[in-house]
Amino acid sequence: MAARTHTFQPPKGTRDFYPQDLAVRRYIESVWREVSINHGFEEIDGPTFEHLDLYTAKSGPGIVSELFSFRRAGGDVDYALRPEFTPTLARMYAAQAGALPKPTKWFSIGPFFRAERPQRGRLREHIQWNLDIIGDESVAADVEIISAAVSALQALGLSPKNIQIQISDRRVMETILLDEGISDPTHQEEVYILLDRRSKLSREEFAWEAGKIGLSKEFITHLDKTIDFVQGHHYSVALQQMFPGDAEVHHVLFELMVELESLDLSQWVQVDLGVVRGLAYYTGTVFEIHETSGEERAIAGGGRYDNLVELFGGPPTPACGFAMGDVVLRLVLEDRGLLKAAQECAPRPDAFVISAGKDEAEKQFRPLVAKLRREGLHARHSYRSTRNVGKLLGEAAKARARFAVILGDELKDGPPWRVVVKDLDSGKQENVKLDDLATMLRERQKQ
Amino acid sequence: MAARTHTFQPPKGTRDFYPQDLAVRRYIESVWREVSINHGFEEIDGPTFEHLDLYTAKSGPGIVSELFSFRRAGGDVDYALRPEFTPTLARMYAAQAGALPKPTKWFSIGPFFRAERPQRGRLREHIQWNLDIIGDESVAADVEIISAAVSALQALGLSPKNIQIQISDRRVMETILLDEGISDPTHQEEVYILLDRRSKLSREEFAWEAGKIGLSKEFITHLDKTIDFVQGHHYSVALQQMFPGDAEVHHVLFELMVELESLDLSQWVQVDLGVVRGLAYYTGTVFEIHETSGEERAIAGGGRYDNLVELFGGPPTPACGFAMGDVVLRLVLEDRGLLKAAQECAPRPDAFVISAGKDEAEKQFRPLVAKLRREGLHARHSYRSTRNVGKLLGEAAKARARFAVILGDELKDGPPWRVVVKDLDSGKQENVKLDDLATMLRERQKQ
Repeated sequence: MAARTHTFQPPKGTRDFYPQDLAVRRYIESVWREVSINHGFEEIDGPTFEHLDLYTAKSGPGIVSELFSFRRAGGDVDYALRPEFTPTLARMYAAQAGALPKPTKWFSIGPFFRAERPQRGRLREHIQWNLDIIGDESVAADVEIISAAVSALQALGLSPKNIQIQISDRRVMETILLDEGISDPTHQEEVYILLDRRSKLSREEFAWEAGKIGLSKEFITHLDKTIDFVQGHHYSVALQQMFPGDAEVHHVLFELMVELESLDLSQWVQVDLGVVRGLAYYTGTVFEIHETSGEERAIAGGGRYDNLVELFGGPPTPACGFAMGDVVLRLVLEDRGLLKAAQECAPRPDAFVISAGKDEAEKQFRPLVAKLRREGLHARHSYRSTRNVGKLLGEAAKARARFAVILGDELKDGPPWRVVVKDLDSGKQENVKLDDLATMLRERQKQ
Repeated sequence: MAARTHTFQPPKGTRDFYPQDLAVRRYIESVWREVSINHGFEEIDGPTFEHLDLYTAKSGPGIVSELFSFRRAGGDVDYALRPEFTPTLARMYAAQAGALPKPTKWFSIGPFFRAERPQRGRLREHIQWNLDIIGDESVAADVEIISAAVSALQALGLSPKNIQIQISDRRVMETILLDEGISDPTHQEEVYILLDRRSKLSREEFAWEAGKIGLSKEFITHLDKTIDFVQGHHYSVALQQMFPGDAEVHHVLFELMVELESLDLSQWVQVDLGVVRGLAYYTGTVFEIHETSGEERAIAGGGRYDNLVELFGGPPTPACGFAMGDVVLRLVLEDRGLLKAAQECAPRPDAFVISAGKDEAEKQFRPLVAKLRREGLHARHSYRSTRNVGKLLGEAAKARARFAVILGDELKDGPPWRVVVKDLDSGKQENVKLDDLATMLRERQKQ
């Protein structure tokens, strides 16, 4: 037995959620859900695993090493645990495109999986919120999803002091690459993947890696300078100075920033041409949400992917969205003490039922608890054998019950049965008819 | 592309949840969660996949063919998608046993997986509710979980007319087998597995299969007669008549039934000695919840498993619990029209914001929507280009918004800005200062 004890751990990179951890997870999920609904999104979900092809169709076979893929014993179909939601969403939209409203606004919350080495902020299983607008090509859609992300961050207690949203448009970086003569899509993709890692590399490391994929020293310097200049200046100055006489290049990005400003979000957002996102499917706006110290991985990332629905058999359909995971978000919230309330906020019992120990009390005790629960009230009782009312009141207080219901001496008078109800906040006691108890507790619940 | 279209389906036996389906799922989950909390249970969760050994340790290697198992590319550890929650729960309890309260009352809700052939009531991925009491050996714990199951069924609109809970104690059947000289645990297990399938087999099929595992004709007749007799009579008569002078055999089952009666649950429950549950780990009370026509598979099943925590490295710990899946439950609820409200009950917008089209209205329209949402209100607007207020009011009504907020002619008077708020239930209109709008909507939300 001892030799197998190592297997009785959760798999590496996954989590056991004991009640306090689960309470935090449910709290984060409930903020995500409420914000999504307030912004007019409807919740959907897909299978936890998909056909492997759904991922290789979009990202090429290179993605397989990052996936948990499998077959059923004796089966001949390859599956993979979902690493992200967008392919499922595009597949689901494509299957029903004709019947769905324009735009379709969907969100989902559930587990996702990556077969990578676990590290700070990155696990093999995490919970992710996806929010997407499908069928709207306007900048207003990009603005709406960024605005929803801000609402969630704000509802969780974060502010522009802690958080920055870095925004770019892939087409701006594409123009810079084309100007340098980098027109081969595969080569462009290599540059995007390197740029995506830029903030994690030193200047020297970046230059060395850039050299490896054939970028000239001059171009690397130009890239660095361009990205730094835009980061250091207001977008209205920076974009026009970087692309004089070619407003077409950045007009979507410009309009996006103007609209975000009109929604009073300028403190949250900043243009960063270095943001390109690692995924191949983005076609326009791209953004990442980071904690300001830059020490953690991205909290969220997203952008516009106008070709994906078509790739999965649907009609040509513009779309944009983002994903926010729970792992980095939790670290950021924990570091700022913003999860304490959720951790401590166990649901409060409406009643803690106490039997003082006499015959009739013992007889009525469990049926009363069961009855209150069946009537939709949160009722608890002690599992200890003591019938010492003082001790049991202590247990009721520890459980943070709203009321203690004491089956005591009043029962000896026979029906109609009466019990003592003690308000554990005010200390006040009342004598209540048993038949009226559920109604009374439900009314107090609303107060 | 066309040749690959088959892959752009959800995997066989899994489900896409479009908004109406997801609404039903969330409704069922919310009933499960509320009932669990009202009964004093705390929510936990584990990883979606576990080490394969966690399942083979308990159920033997035979279970592997029913699992989706896999390895990471290049890895050397075998994993499996969780087919059930109890091994995770026992592992988690064992890891923290010293620090946990006695009893520990846990519930969980999440996806589970079986690599079986999909059929009515049985999918490869389903959502399951688990409810367990760990560390209490008394019959009261068995009673409490059965009582919680009833609360959930009742809250979902079901009654004893639709639902029966069939209860037994494995030790009763074990006594019957021992009396027949069947004492080898492996042979007993074979009989349990066959008994578990009894209700799905004809008398002839059952007799034939029973013969195959070495049961005599006389014993099969005796078994049938015993099970039928107990099913046909009140437990107090049946158990005593079947086991005269040996009350020890059925005293736990007897006490369980007496206590369930005292909680006013006798209409829901019935002793059925044919219920043994297929899983090897049950040690005492076992039960199944069925729709009364008997046409569907079990809605839920559970029982007492007093050896499992120890098997996973914890101290000897009594435990009992049950699991209820969403697939059969949904069929049963759908057949009775009990899911219509959940399907139709999309969240109701607090406000549908309409721009009548003038300059100032157009300017303030989107910022107002964003502001209301950031203040925690559910705000919507049209994505159509029309500025016809009548048409837009129609869209607001279709979205079932509580109020329409119209940015119209009042704006031409300049600040303080005023808008028209129309109550879409009563038809009443008011002229409201923009600064007061959020507060007003929030107050109405509470009414």
